[in-house]
Amino acid sequence: MVKRQRPSNRYVILTLTALMTGLFFFVLPFVAQAGVFNAQKFTLKNGLEVVVIPNHRAPVVTHMLWYRVGAADELPGLSGMAHYFEHLMFKGTKKLEPGEFSRTVKKLGGNDNAFTGQDYTAYFQSISVEHLGRMMKMEADRMQNLNPPEADFISEKKVVLEERRQRTENDPRGLFTEQMRSSLFVNHPYAIPTIGWMDEIKTYEWEDVKSFYETWYAPNNAVLIVSGDITAKELKPLAQKTYGKIKAKKLPERMRPKVASAIGETKMTLEHKAIHQPYFQRLYLAPASSKFKEDALALYVLEEIVSGGPTARLYKNLVVEQKKAVSVGMSYSGDSLDYGTIWFSATPATGVSVENLEHLVDQEIVKVIKDGVTEDEVKDAIQRLQDQAIYARDSLAGPAMIFGHALTTGSTIDDIENWPEDIARVTAEQVQEVTQKYLSPYNPWIRPPVTGYVFPLDGEEEKKK
Amino acid sequence: MVKRQRPSNRYVILTLTALMTGLFFFVLPFVAQAGVFNAQKFTLKNGLEVVVIPNHRAPVVTHMLWYRVGAADELPGLSGMAHYFEHLMFKGTKKLEPGEFSRTVKKLGGNDNAFTGQDYTAYFQSISVEHLGRMMKMEADRMQNLNPPEADFISEKKVVLEERRQRTENDPRGLFTEQMRSSLFVNHPYAIPTIGWMDEIKTYEWEDVKSFYETWYAPNNAVLIVSGDITAKELKPLAQKTYGKIKAKKLPERMRPKVASAIGETKMTLEHKAIHQPYFQRLYLAPASSKFKEDALALYVLEEIVSGGPTARLYKNLVVEQKKAVSVGMSYSGDSLDYGTIWFSATPATGVSVENLEHLVDQEIVKVIKDGVTEDEVKDAIQRLQDQAIYARDSLAGPAMIFGHALTTGSTIDDIENWPEDIARVTAEQVQEVTQKYLSPYNPWIRPPVTGYVFPLDGEEEKKK
Repeated sequence: MVKRQRPSNRYVILTLTALMTGLFFFVLPFVAQAGVFNAQKFTLKNGLEVVVIPNHRAPVVTHMLWYRVGAADELPGLSGMAHYFEHLMFKGTKKLEPGEFSRTVKKLGGNDNAFTGQDYTAYFQSISVEHLGRMMKMEADRMQNLNPPEADFISEKKVVLEERRQRTENDPRGLFTEQMRSSLFVNHPYAIPTIGWMDEIKTYEWEDVKSFYETWYAPNNAVLIVSGDITAKELKPLAQKTYGKIKAKKLPERMRPKVASAIGETKMTLEHKAIHQPYFQRLYLAPASSKFKEDALALYVLEEIVSGGPTARLYKNLVVEQKKAVSVGMSYSGDSLDYGTIWFSATPATGVSVENLEHLVDQEIVKVIKDGVTEDEVKDAIQRLQDQAIYARDSLAGPAMIFGHALTTGSTIDDIENWPEDIARVTAEQVQEVTQKYLSPYNPWIRPPVTGYVFPLDGEEEKKK
Repeated sequence: MVKRQRPSNRYVILTLTALMTGLFFFVLPFVAQAGVFNAQKFTLKNGLEVVVIPNHRAPVVTHMLWYRVGAADELPGLSGMAHYFEHLMFKGTKKLEPGEFSRTVKKLGGNDNAFTGQDYTAYFQSISVEHLGRMMKMEADRMQNLNPPEADFISEKKVVLEERRQRTENDPRGLFTEQMRSSLFVNHPYAIPTIGWMDEIKTYEWEDVKSFYETWYAPNNAVLIVSGDITAKELKPLAQKTYGKIKAKKLPERMRPKVASAIGETKMTLEHKAIHQPYFQRLYLAPASSKFKEDALALYVLEEIVSGGPTARLYKNLVVEQKKAVSVGMSYSGDSLDYGTIWFSATPATGVSVENLEHLVDQEIVKVIKDGVTEDEVKDAIQRLQDQAIYARDSLAGPAMIFGHALTTGSTIDDIENWPEDIARVTAEQVQEVTQKYLSPYNPWIRPPVTGYVFPLDGEEEKKK
C-alpha cells in the first residue's frame, strides 16, 4: 500500500515490511464489537453506497470516499496508475486551483489524506462537523470535474518516480520483498507493486490518465464512509445534494486472473552491502477473508498463538528460551479482494545460521500441524483479539478505515459488526486444519511458498562487482 | 510454442525442453544465403503483407498465413486463447463444415498444419501448385467467415485441456520449466504458457472467443508467405482475388509491458518421483534479435562455441575430458518480439553433485568473460552457422517458416537475406562483450537468471506426501 500524507507533502509508504512488523494498523483483523459501531447504511440512486458510523463524543467527523479501483486494476504496462492518479486528484478541478483542496481543509482546521492499495483508492478528511457539507461538495466535485494543468501531469510523474526511488529503489529489503511478492503471485496483478515499476511510470500518457479517470471514478464505484457526530438521517440530504447529482457509469469488469498453481519450491537470495544482519522471510499464498471466512478467522487465531506478542510460541521458544533468534514473527493478512498472504520472518542470534533458524521455524509449524494447539491457547488468543476491538473505537478514522477497507475487499458490514462472535467460534481443530491446509510443506495450497534469504555482502564479494 | 499436427489429430507440443535439446528447428538462427532465397515482397491495399520465395524444383508450394497475434496478446484471465482459437479455425465457416478444411487438403494430396507461439499464430498447407488458389480461397474464407457450431466451441475446450493435461500437467519437467519462465518474465506476458493455465481455459465464454477473432484476425494483421513453384507476379492476382477482398480493421496496440528489473537471485527446486536423474537448468533473460541485432548475432556465435556439438567447450570439457556431466548445453533463442532467452542445462555424471556441476558450468562462463574466445573458435563457429543455411533451402516449408517467424517477431526480409554477411561480422571481442553483458553473475541484464534444480524424490520423502 502506498500512503500519501497531506498537506505536509511527505509521502509515507507503508510497505510489506511495515506490514510484517505489525506497524500497519490496517492489517488488524476487522475489530469491532457487535452493535457497538451500529453502522447505518443506505445507497443513493446513482449507486453510491453510504455508511454512517455515529459517534457523538465531539462535533467532528471523518469523511472518507473509497473507490473500488486499485493497483490490481491497472492495464498492462501502466503499473502505478491508480496511485499516480491519487496524486493528480489534488491538482485541481474546474472550480479549484491545484492544491486548493488541501489548503481549504487546513484553513478550516482539518486535515486530509489519501492512499492507494491493490484493491482500492481512498480519500479522507477529518474536520469539524459544520464543514462536512463543504467536504462532500469538494469531494463530489473532483469525482467528476478533475482538471489538472498539463504541467502538473508531468511534474507529478517526477514526484512519484522520486517517491519510488527513495522508498523502494534505494532500499534493497523493500526491493527484495517486492520481488518475493512478484514470484508468488504468478499470473495475478498482486505481483505488481502498488507504486508501479519505474520504467512504466515514465511512460504514462495524458490519454491513459484520462481514460483511467473516466473508467473508474464514478458514484456507483465508490463507498462513502462518514464516522463521527452525524446520523444517517442527517447525512442523507447532504449526500443527495452533492454526490447524488453525479451520473452512474457503466463499469468494466475487474480483471483478476487466478494465481497459477505450481509444483516447485522457490528460494530467492539477496546479498547486499546495505545489509548488516542476515535474515530470512517466507511468503505463503493464503485465503482472502471475504472468500474463505472461516479459514481466515482460524488463521487470525493461529497468528495470535504463534506470533501475538512475547508469550506467543515463536518468540517464546526461539528468542527467549532457545536464544536462536533475535526476532521472529508470522503475519496473516486476509483483507484483500482475491488472495491473502502469510509472512514469516526471522533474524538469527549471533552464531546461528539462517538455515538453522529456518529449520527451527519449520519445526514450530510442523508442531502445530502434527500436535495442534491447546484449548487454552485458542481461548487466550480469541480474548486478545476481541480486546483489540476496544482500540478500534478510540478514533473516528479507525472505524472508517475498517469499514472502507472491508467494503472494498469483498467483506460486509455484518462481517465487521459480528466479528467478536465470529472469532469466538474458532476451535483448536480449525487452527490445526488451516495450518495443515495453508502451511504444509507437502501439499501447498495452489503453489508452494517463496522463501527469501538476505545476507550482508562481504568486502571480497563486493570488489568483484 | 504449441504446435498442432493435422489431420492425424495428434497434437504435438514442442516445449522449451525440446527447444533446449535443439530438436526444434524454428530456433535455428535465421539461416539464409544472400540472394539465395530471393524473396519478393508486396503489400495488398488492405494491408496484407505478401512474401514469395520462388523455388521451381517441383510443382508444389507451401502456403502459410501468419497472424501477428499470439499467446502474449491475450487478455488477463484468458490465457491460452490464441492457441485455443487456432483449434477453432478448423471448425468450419459459413461455407465449410467443421473439419472440411483439412479433409479437402488431404483429398487434394496435401497436408495442413497450424501452430501458436507467444507472438504469432500460423496456418499452412503444402500442396500441388495447381491447388494454391483453392487454398488461398479457403484460408481467406476462414479469416472472415468463421462459424464454428456451439458444440465444437465446448468440445474443443476439452480437447485443449486434455492436451495440456497430457503434455504438461503430467510432466513435472515441463511444469517446472514453465514455472521457471514464469519466475523470469515478471510483469511480461511471456510468463504465461502458450497453451494457457488449466483454470483459465475452462472459463472461456463464447463472447471472449468472438471478440478475440474480431479483434485480431484481419488482413492488415497478417503476413502471407508462399514458398515454391510460383512468382510474385503470378501470385498477386490470386491474392487480390481472395485475401484482397477482405476489409482492413483498426487494430489495438499490442500491450507488452517491460520485464521488471530485480536484484535477488532466484532458485527453484523440484523433487519428484518421476525424476530419476538429477539435473539443473538456468534461464537468463536475453535480447530479442529484432531489438539488439548485433548482440544477438554475437550470442549465436557464443552458443555455437560453447554448445554447438561435440567439439564445443561445454561438451568437450565437462563430458569428454573431465567426465563430470552426461549432458550439458546452452541455447540462445532471440527470435521473439520482446525478449529472448538463454538456457543452460546439465545432468551430472554418476557420483557428481548437481552443485558441483553447476559450479563447473559457471567456471566455463567466467572463462569466456575473463579470457574471451579465440579467433579460430569464432571463425569455425561462423562457418558452421553459415553452413547450416544450406539445410534451410532444402524444403519449401523451411524458408516459409523462417520468413514468417522473422516478420512476425520484428525482423525484416533483409535480416534474413543478409544473415551470412551479418554473422560473418562478429568478432571475438563482441562474443566476450555479450557474455559479460548477459551472463555476468554480478551485473545481470535487467534481472538475474532463474536456476532450477530437479531431484528424484526418495521413498522416505514420498511417504510424507
